[in-house]
Amino acid sequence: MTANLFERFLSTPEAAEAFSDVSIIQGMLDFEGALARAQAAEGIIPGAAAAVIAGACRAERFDAEAIVAGGSLAGTLAIPLVKQLTAAVAAQDAEAAGWVHWGSTSQDVIDTAVVLATRRALVSIDASLGSLIGALTKLAQVHRDTPMLGRTLLQPALVISVGFKLTSWVAPLVRGRERLRLAARAALKLQLGGAVGTLSVMGEKGSAVAQRMAADLGLRAGPGAWQTQRDEWVALACEAGLLCGSFGKIAKDISLLAQAEVAEVAEPSGGGRGGSSAMPHKRNPVASMLALAAAARAPHRVAALLATMPQEHERGLGNWQAELAEWPGLFMSVHGAAHALAEAAAGLSVDAARMRTNIDALHGLVFAEAASMLFARHVGKSRAHALLESLSKRCVAEQRPLLDVALESLAGDAALASVIAADELRAVFDVNAAARHASSTVDSQWADLRARAAALDAEPL
Amino acid sequence: MTANLFERFLSTPEAAEAFSDVSIIQGMLDFEGALARAQAAEGIIPGAAAAVIAGACRAERFDAEAIVAGGSLAGTLAIPLVKQLTAAVAAQDAEAAGWVHWGSTSQDVIDTAVVLATRRALVSIDASLGSLIGALTKLAQVHRDTPMLGRTLLQPALVISVGFKLTSWVAPLVRGRERLRLAARAALKLQLGGAVGTLSVMGEKGSAVAQRMAADLGLRAGPGAWQTQRDEWVALACEAGLLCGSFGKIAKDISLLAQAEVAEVAEPSGGGRGGSSAMPHKRNPVASMLALAAAARAPHRVAALLATMPQEHERGLGNWQAELAEWPGLFMSVHGAAHALAEAAAGLSVDAARMRTNIDALHGLVFAEAASMLFARHVGKSRAHALLESLSKRCVAEQRPLLDVALESLAGDAALASVIAADELRAVFDVNAAARHASSTVDSQWADLRARAAALDAEPL
Amino acid sequence: MTANLFERFLSTPEAAEAFSDVSIIQGMLDFEGALARAQAAEGIIPGAAAAVIAGACRAERFDAEAIVAGGSLAGTLAIPLVKQLTAAVAAQDAEAAGWVHWGSTSQDVIDTAVVLATRRALVSIDASLGSLIGALTKLAQVHRDTPMLGRTLLQPALVISVGFKLTSWVAPLVRGRERLRLAARAALKLQLGGAVGTLSVMGEKGSAVAQRMAADLGLRAGPGAWQTQRDEWVALACEAGLLCGSFGKIAKDISLLAQAEVAEVAEPSGGGRGGSSAMPHKRNPVASMLALAAAARAPHRVAALLATMPQEHERGLGNWQAELAEWPGLFMSVHGAAHALAEAAAGLSVDAARMRTNIDALHGLVFAEAASMLFARHVGKSRAHALLESLSKRCVAEQRPLLDVALESLAGDAALASVIAADELRAVFDVNAAARHASSTVDSQWADLRARAAALDAEPL
Amino acid sequence: MTANLFERFLSTPEAAEAFSDVSIIQGMLDFEGALARAQAAEGIIPGAAAAVIAGACRAERFDAEAIVAGGSLAGTLAIPLVKQLTAAVAAQDAEAAGWVHWGSTSQDVIDTAVVLATRRALVSIDASLGSLIGALTKLAQVHRDTPMLGRTLLQPALVISVGFKLTSWVAPLVRGRERLRLAARAALKLQLGGAVGTLSVMGEKGSAVAQRMAADLGLRAGPGAWQTQRDEWVALACEAGLLCGSFGKIAKDISLLAQAEVAEVAEPSGGGRGGSSAMPHKRNPVASMLALAAAARAPHRVAALLATMPQEHERGLGNWQAELAEWPGLFMSVHGAAHALAEAAAGLSVDAARMRTNIDALHGLVFAEAASMLFARHVGKSRAHALLESLSKRCVAEQRPLLDVALESLAGDAALASVIAADELRAVFDVNAAARHASSTVDSQWADLRARAAALDAEPL
Repeated sequence: MTANLFERFLSTPEAAEAFSDVSIIQGMLDFEGALARAQAAEGIIPGAAAAVIAGACRAERFDAEAIVAGGSLAGTLAIPLVKQLTAAVAAQDAEAAGWVHWGSTSQDVIDTAVVLATRRALVSIDASLGSLIGALTKLAQVHRDTPMLGRTLLQPALVISVGFKLTSWVAPLVRGRERLRLAARAALKLQLGGAVGTLSVMGEKGSAVAQRMAADLGLRAGPGAWQTQRDEWVALACEAGLLCGSFGKIAKDISLLAQAEVAEVAEPSGGGRGGSSAMPHKRNPVASMLALAAAARAPHRVAALLATMPQEHERGLGNWQAELAEWPGLFMSVHGAAHALAEAAAGLSVDAARMRTNIDALHGLVFAEAASMLFARHVGKSRAHALLESLSKRCVAEQRPLLDVALESLAGDAALASVIAADELRAVFDVNAAARHASSTVDSQWADLRARAAALDAEPL
Repeated sequence: MTANLFERFLSTPEAAEAFSDVSIIQGMLDFEGALARAQAAEGIIPGAAAAVIAGACRAERFDAEAIVAGGSLAGTLAIPLVKQLTAAVAAQDAEAAGWVHWGSTSQDVIDTAVVLATRRALVSIDASLGSLIGALTKLAQVHRDTPMLGRTLLQPALVISVGFKLTSWVAPLVRGRERLRLAARAALKLQLGGAVGTLSVMGEKGSAVAQRMAADLGLRAGPGAWQTQRDEWVALACEAGLLCGSFGKIAKDISLLAQAEVAEVAEPSGGGRGGSSAMPHKRNPVASMLALAAAARAPHRVAALLATMPQEHERGLGNWQAELAEWPGLFMSVHGAAHALAEAAAGLSVDAARMRTNIDALHGLVFAEAASMLFARHVGKSRAHALLESLSKRCVAEQRPLLDVALESLAGDAALASVIAADELRAVFDVNAAARHASSTVDSQWADLRARAAALDAEPL
Repeated sequence: MTANLFERFLSTPEAAEAFSDVSIIQGMLDFEGALARAQAAEGIIPGAAAAVIAGACRAERFDAEAIVAGGSLAGTLAIPLVKQLTAAVAAQDAEAAGWVHWGSTSQDVIDTAVVLATRRALVSIDASLGSLIGALTKLAQVHRDTPMLGRTLLQPALVISVGFKLTSWVAPLVRGRERLRLAARAALKLQLGGAVGTLSVMGEKGSAVAQRMAADLGLRAGPGAWQTQRDEWVALACEAGLLCGSFGKIAKDISLLAQAEVAEVAEPSGGGRGGSSAMPHKRNPVASMLALAAAARAPHRVAALLATMPQEHERGLGNWQAELAEWPGLFMSVHGAAHALAEAAAGLSVDAARMRTNIDALHGLVFAEAASMLFARHVGKSRAHALLESLSKRCVAEQRPLLDVALESLAGDAALASVIAADELRAVFDVNAAARHASSTVDSQWADLRARAAALDAEPL
Repeated sequence: MTANLFERFLSTPEAAEAFSDVSIIQGMLDFEGALARAQAAEGIIPGAAAAVIAGACRAERFDAEAIVAGGSLAGTLAIPLVKQLTAAVAAQDAEAAGWVHWGSTSQDVIDTAVVLATRRALVSIDASLGSLIGALTKLAQVHRDTPMLGRTLLQPALVISVGFKLTSWVAPLVRGRERLRLAARAALKLQLGGAVGTLSVMGEKGSAVAQRMAADLGLRAGPGAWQTQRDEWVALACEAGLLCGSFGKIAKDISLLAQAEVAEVAEPSGGGRGGSSAMPHKRNPVASMLALAAAARAPHRVAALLATMPQEHERGLGNWQAELAEWPGLFMSVHGAAHALAEAAAGLSVDAARMRTNIDALHGLVFAEAASMLFARHVGKSRAHALLESLSKRCVAEQRPLLDVALESLAGDAALASVIAADELRAVFDVNAAARHASSTVDSQWADLRARAAALDAEPL
């Protein structure tokens, strides 16, 4: 298996499988097979040998535990793998065994295997991102103008709309998916350099071999080996980290809105989802939990990867190996979160009535700024701010609507009453108008986001 | 000042100045001035008031310590700043004071100020990057084919060339500079949203005000406020972190090559650079030290910023504030490293003779792989590998050149001697040919890098 | 100043002062003065020279900017400082100038200065910790048995008491304060090693000089220099990080409980605390914000410090310098949080009525587990769990108290009714009894915590 | 398996086993068994039921993949585990099944299982630490006075001794092992709290059950549950992080000293250790590689754990789950490094002759400080420093020993020659005397370290 129980619990079977022992070993073998084929095509090794080598590259015949044990001793997992492969080839064709892993080095095999595994994980991640964006976009259409509280510093602020709120969830996802694609295009490249990156054993044919292998494996052929040039690789991890940040923001909001006392949204339940081993009444926001866990873990993985970048000379000591170990967990975590949120978004229930109740419970205080601005046009901002502060206090103390208190105040002040009509003041407190205004500010943004999301959906990773 | 003594020591005056109290406060005031002008142009506030407000926006008249003290109490630095500005405006025009900060909120002022400061720092960073790339590129031309050891896992591996080595330093810098520009274009945008991002106070005119302000301040106008959409912002920090990783790789190599026992390169000295308070003979690699310090610090800053992304609802509690605090040090650190490396690269001395001495001291062992491959074509890889292992041991034990030992072995084996000519074996041990081969593999890469570097130089950030 | 505007905003004047330029420079000078005095006492340098040197060690006469500029060139801040000090001494006594910094090195001066600054910050931190523990302990006494909801995964779980809740806030603080003291005792030690740690210049007298200096400066004399032995030093930073974690837990709880929809506690307001530049009605939980910011920043600072531990040979290149730069912000952050929480705790209002309202709003669902357990004794756990799940659903659907629904169910099942009395079932739903039970489980813990807190208070750091 | 291929490669079979699926599941079952036994002893559940439950608690009968899949849905791994256990018990005794997991909750089961797994890993870590300390101490005795270069900022500084150098490796290990024991004593405690920490289902008997279970499992019984009080737990992780820092320092030094151009020490080789898949001559420092990888990874794991501390209310959402996922890799990494370094230390070869050669190659420059101090006593420090700087330059330019150049200078200056005897100057350049001085400064420290190491060895964890 790929990871401890608790990591797999936070991931998905697909992502765990992408980085499983079998998947990594098969990736190494795919490298060796493609190397042999390419070298045969370039006349470096005999075609017959290449055929035997490629035929032996089947992960299920390899012993992962022996590779780990041998690797710890040798200092690299590639040595025992090549040894097992050589033995398998030799069992069929002693001469062919001599051409296994010809002119290559540990890092070529291992980096390429991790690239292949990562591409597999990215396909799952990208698909879940598409589902998540789709589900949230649909929700934003249904509830475009539903009024809800905007909150700052965990306190009620002004009225916004559900459509407006969802922009702040979806826009980073669309951008993040675009940036992830871009980063993947740069990062998913063949590693082939031989001992120090010069492909010295292949003479003039190194570049041609690399081109053939890249085509064979469906990877980009870099302009050279990237043994200690990790910037494009770690840049991909940064995008994974940024996605987790955006997932975390959504999950934080959902989990806060799903608190019993707020109760404005709920993750889908049923079928054993989100139960408690102790409490029969519990409905836990499990998808948010998974996404928050990803957001809690990812920054440290990204930091670990950034910190391993200063790799010594032509191959790092300790830092390259640390990079490999920290890498899979990050992408497993990203898919765990993306997949869970996509499922939750598709079934997210939005309680418009409760949203309204929560707004109304504040007695119109969330319109204090707007009322203040109305008065300010006539009495100046500081007098207006002070007036509203005192009206707000009365509203709280007397548990009466701020609008009523404000209308009384207006009626009692002839000068003000002569310039501000009561209806003008009432309009300021219109919940639905406030929500519609919020939605209107993101109309063109949504058009753009939908178009970009459609373009991404049209051409899968 | 911007930072503690030890942070400033690792940075530059320009970068420290970009994030100084005065610079940040001026950035906040530039926001307030631009806001007033834009609102006047849109007929939201009187033109006369805007003029007085804009005229009062001069940082040198503000008291930073009072702003910090007031901010800690209020929970935001913007409240005391706006209070000071309002007082300054009121001193000239009581009515105008009522229009200060109209319809805006703390986050608008502060985020925009940090964007402006960051842009200033990026100009310095980008320029130093250009110098660094230029100096290393020149060095690669001068020493294109100078042979040097390639080293893996801190042990000698094969012969490479200085030109080849420098590719691995320069390519990540060119890519990093390109990605930094791209990220900056996305991230350097105006923040303007009012209380919750809807610009509610400005009614229909919010977007027009934002367009005017962005043009005024030379920033991008986002498609909306980005109060809790921090992905493009933190993506810029990721690029800063990636650059530090690439700087760290260069500095690690320089500092290893500059060890007395290796002595292949030396940072420029003289003028008090790199001395010791205790040891008169010391010449410390100070630029590498600064770059390694940046590489040691940056990953954790990036992680801190990624971790603050899940900001609650329409403004975060604690996480936004943490982001602001961690941000400046990252960019100060980047410039400290970039500037120091650019200076060091311009004066880096390369000791080609010593490089050759270090190669020769290994008695040709670094050609063991190449010799093994030559033999392998005739006796198979595993026999060849075993043969070279045993020859290598003799070479070490007897302190004789591997070539001599191998020639003896060849001469003593009639079968081998009939297929491998002595000259063929000698060619394998040709240091200069190995270096030329290494350089040839990066020729086309250098052409591309030089073109891209020139394009970046042509159009400054 | 010590730090950028946003870091100072999250800290306190005391902590900022502890790491200010003047404080660090005075610390370096205190080292130099103590060194001269100790060497004079041991007969290494003339007593008269020592007197002149010690007299010149006044930070206000030194130019911090020149030290930073000179330090960046030289590679260490100590060289320009020693140069300035030497000049100041020479101005009075040319011969004495020759004895300045005798036999010492940069790291001695700088590490000791940071130790002294840290001690100063720790005194403030420890005092605020004491106040915070005291205020929370008082609150726990007043509200010992006040029932409130216990919540898990951000959903209501069972009834606890305020006294029980506060244990989970206070116990980590008491332990944290104890561990901080222990770590400080180990970490606050003199650094004195000379060039490589051997005090070679002082011959046999090195140890005696160290003993005298330690006594003079009130520090522990290590059994030797700790130039690249950073474990006790970074262990102190770990304790700072752990404290921020514990602060963050408290702040998270307070900020969640202070949400308008929950409204069970409120931070003190008034006097401009927690206002909004846009919204007159806002009361933001500012202390929680500061503590959450500290909790968001500290882990990354600790990681940075841990990552710098592998320092090369007898003095690190880049890592030591990175450690120095990251250190002050951590301790500034700790005090910002401790101080703010102490103030907030002293004025925290607890709304017992609202706590009860929030419990009652759940219709008794939080007693579902308890009821299930009661039934389970007679019908087995799985039947009971299933029964309560179905009763819970009815309770939610019909918006009736779970107790009523359960009593009906009991009455309708003759077998059950024969073994469970209605009063027994009613007892399970007793809110006050549940709270008293919760409090009773932490009684002895509180006794212990109070005793330990008193012991800490009795003997200040 | 516990972890991906690359993590296991960096760890050991013992540590991987401690956190394997079977080990964690057995830990959960050990908890359930102990719970049943303790509750039976307290009369809460029938003794016969307890016996059946305890008998069913055998991990090999449980399906890990089903637990992961069920856990992801339910939101906790404990629910499917308890379900499987209940089914296993029911197969034997339907009534007993009703008493499974009585009054407990997910977190009790899971936290306790991780505590048990961690204890197992700590036993291995502590043992390897003992071996490592022992091996290094032996080395320090053999090479107590062997002269070697002290180096600062990766440049030669002064002469030290191997015995002195090893102090800086061993002292942090001894302290680290002591602190690890202390932290383990605090952290290895039973988790038992029920739904919210109050053990409400067990009434008055909760504490007695906890005492019995702790005794049964060999754990400390906390003064209560620690569901969201993670300070003692994460403090243990901090100690793991500090150990990795200390390992990294040793590994950094070894790998630098093992560079071909330095060649002062070598890790043991043979038996396939440290080979290369490409280069027959390679001998890579594999143990250093493992330790450096641990040092590169651990800080970020510690940061992740610190960052998860602010857990909401009575059980965290996302942060607790992230903590569990990041925990095992840290301890696996620690043991990988400790074990590898212990093996390497036991076979580390020290090349005293090469150490001397490297000193001599510097022409006595490493005595420049000492010579400067000798002159300074007579001509003042600044003149002496300038003199030695100029002599050092001549020594380098002319490639002659600094002693010779200095003797000439002395002979040519009658005034100086009258106060400094040539022999006095020669003594300053005595390599062996310098090494003996270095060793003498750590004599008492070694006595103390040996005593403490012996005390730790005497009483295993």
